[in-house]
Amino acid sequence: MRTTTGWLAGEQEPTLRRATLRRRDLRDDDIAIRVDYCGVCHTDLHAVRAPRDTALVPGHEFTGVVTGTGPAVTRFAAGDAVAVGNIVDSCGTCAMCRRGQENYCAEFPTLTYGGTDRHDGSPTLGAFSREYVVRDEFAYRLPAGLDPASAAPLLCAGITVWEPLRALGAGPGTRVAVAGLGGLGHLAVKLSVALGAETTVISRSPGKAGDASRLGASELLVSTDPRQLAAARDRFDVVIDTIAVAHDVGPYLRLVALDGTLSQVGHLGPITVEAMDLLVGRKKLTSAGSGGRAATAAMLEFCARNDLSADVEVVPSARVNDVLERLTRNDVRYRFVLDLADLDDEDPAQKAVYPPSTGRTAPVM
Amino acid sequence: MRTTTGWLAGEQEPTLRRATLRRRDLRDDDIAIRVDYCGVCHTDLHAVRAPRDTALVPGHEFTGVVTGTGPAVTRFAAGDAVAVGNIVDSCGTCAMCRRGQENYCAEFPTLTYGGTDRHDGSPTLGAFSREYVVRDEFAYRLPAGLDPASAAPLLCAGITVWEPLRALGAGPGTRVAVAGLGGLGHLAVKLSVALGAETTVISRSPGKAGDASRLGASELLVSTDPRQLAAARDRFDVVIDTIAVAHDVGPYLRLVALDGTLSQVGHLGPITVEAMDLLVGRKKLTSAGSGGRAATAAMLEFCARNDLSADVEVVPSARVNDVLERLTRNDVRYRFVLDLADLDDEDPAQKAVYPPSTGRTAPVM
Repeated sequence: MRTTTGWLAGEQEPTLRRATLRRRDLRDDDIAIRVDYCGVCHTDLHAVRAPRDTALVPGHEFTGVVTGTGPAVTRFAAGDAVAVGNIVDSCGTCAMCRRGQENYCAEFPTLTYGGTDRHDGSPTLGAFSREYVVRDEFAYRLPAGLDPASAAPLLCAGITVWEPLRALGAGPGTRVAVAGLGGLGHLAVKLSVALGAETTVISRSPGKAGDASRLGASELLVSTDPRQLAAARDRFDVVIDTIAVAHDVGPYLRLVALDGTLSQVGHLGPITVEAMDLLVGRKKLTSAGSGGRAATAAMLEFCARNDLSADVEVVPSARVNDVLERLTRNDVRYRFVLDLADLDDEDPAQKAVYPPSTGRTAPVM
Repeated sequence: MRTTTGWLAGEQEPTLRRATLRRRDLRDDDIAIRVDYCGVCHTDLHAVRAPRDTALVPGHEFTGVVTGTGPAVTRFAAGDAVAVGNIVDSCGTCAMCRRGQENYCAEFPTLTYGGTDRHDGSPTLGAFSREYVVRDEFAYRLPAGLDPASAAPLLCAGITVWEPLRALGAGPGTRVAVAGLGGLGHLAVKLSVALGAETTVISRSPGKAGDASRLGASELLVSTDPRQLAAARDRFDVVIDTIAVAHDVGPYLRLVALDGTLSQVGHLGPITVEAMDLLVGRKKLTSAGSGGRAATAAMLEFCARNDLSADVEVVPSARVNDVLERLTRNDVRYRFVLDLADLDDEDPAQKAVYPPSTGRTAPVM
């Protein structure tokens, strides 16, 4: 086993503390990555704060540099800049995997943290840590020109909105609305604009008009103004709904054009719709999350060509608990990224080792 | 005013009785139709049985013969065989109307019964009656070769499943499943098969295998058999869900293929879905009902070319209350059609006249 340093939430702990983490020795097709930057996703916040009976290391959108390769690895060499998202393995043989949609693997893809390794059964520990070990097929070359800090959020927030934008045909001649201007939303706007779609932001906050314009949107619709919503009825071919809390999608469905689609990506719980809100205009409701390997690589190339990445606030990883606290208040424009270099500094108080043994699961020491 | 005879449910009455009905005098663009056959839709049952504070004449899928025309009518002449569906007018100027989707008119289309005439404000009375007066644009020529009795249900049940099948691209190379084999479902199967799609029926009843095969389906999936459902996961590009009661769409969404769509057309209440059931496979949920004028005319031509109409049980209109009772038990294969010729017979007991005066609304005499 190898060891590294990372940020661990113990079984009952709603905060993270520095700990020594064990990583597996490199398998034939593994690479080791020095994690430089890792974005902070709402999922991380939920994972840390939710009741859990296992310890947890969050982090699933990161960039870094290859530091080692297994003997069968040919795609990468030490020193390569790479990026990894929220899935790190899949069965590879089901129909979805064969179509390049490893994120929809019939056996469920292995998640970057909180998952179970398909080979040794160990729990996966995320990239709020200085090193990550991953199967080479699930790492992506970071294209030259992309800043590694602001590119990190592309690997989860970016691909989550890229997939529906592409699947729903966003491009020249289409009208896209993005509801909610947060981590997902601001990337949806940038990607939609870069794809050539006429792009509108829908937000509760009229104060976001400046940001919407700066991101390339042609308009801001204020969702609390019934007249603005009424005037925009049946207008958008695609609505990407990035609102991160449970909400009524009815008012947003009414903005969708004939045969258009609303993709809810911000809140993944039950959704209730009135059939009439779908029927009138033959509107569609869908959702999306994560992406396949081919789409992820294509998105990174697209972002590099279009000089596009996230608006980020980069903070030393030691401030991770403050970051989570600010995230609960949506106090970020638009994505926190942890700089993990501070984990190279010694910390005499760092005592916990996780997992404590090489067993599959175990309590935190 | 003109008068005719039809089947009326008084304000508080859950059954229909014979009554004299007033129809408007022909306006410039009106035609009068002798109603020969009218299908019985679940909507009719709900309308009659639901608490109401107005009287009601059901019936919104019918065929008949033109008996008179207003002076501006050029499309029809007396003696023409025609058909009418569940909408009889729309604003004609909104974006949806201009796109030929009068069924989604921004001002709401005028329904064949239970609606309000856009010109004189009178309540519309349905086609469980011997005569109907309708604006010529909302009547369709009944193509030669279509039997007027079995064609009647095409005007509601047929168009309701035709629109999503067409919008979702059902045809050669696509796989369509139809959940529920009733009035809507059996027409969805016939239309899907005629469009060239590989078509599967999903039903609780293994006993429907023979009918499914006779209708042209390649397979019957029994929805109560978890193994059959598991084996069909991610299989269908299009699922037309015609189940007429509230139900969990989750098991049916899981049968939808990557980027495929489930259209719920049988039950128009709130629908609750798990976002994950949409997310995994980027599946879409939609609904449909009725159709635009162009699509309705195209469907009728398609049905004539393919010798396709509903499987019907034709009954004299005097048995309408029995028919509604049997419909509550789904005791029909697959659509009841009322033969309204019996309304030509005298009935000395027929006393009610509705509306009692030419006022907009009034209690039944």
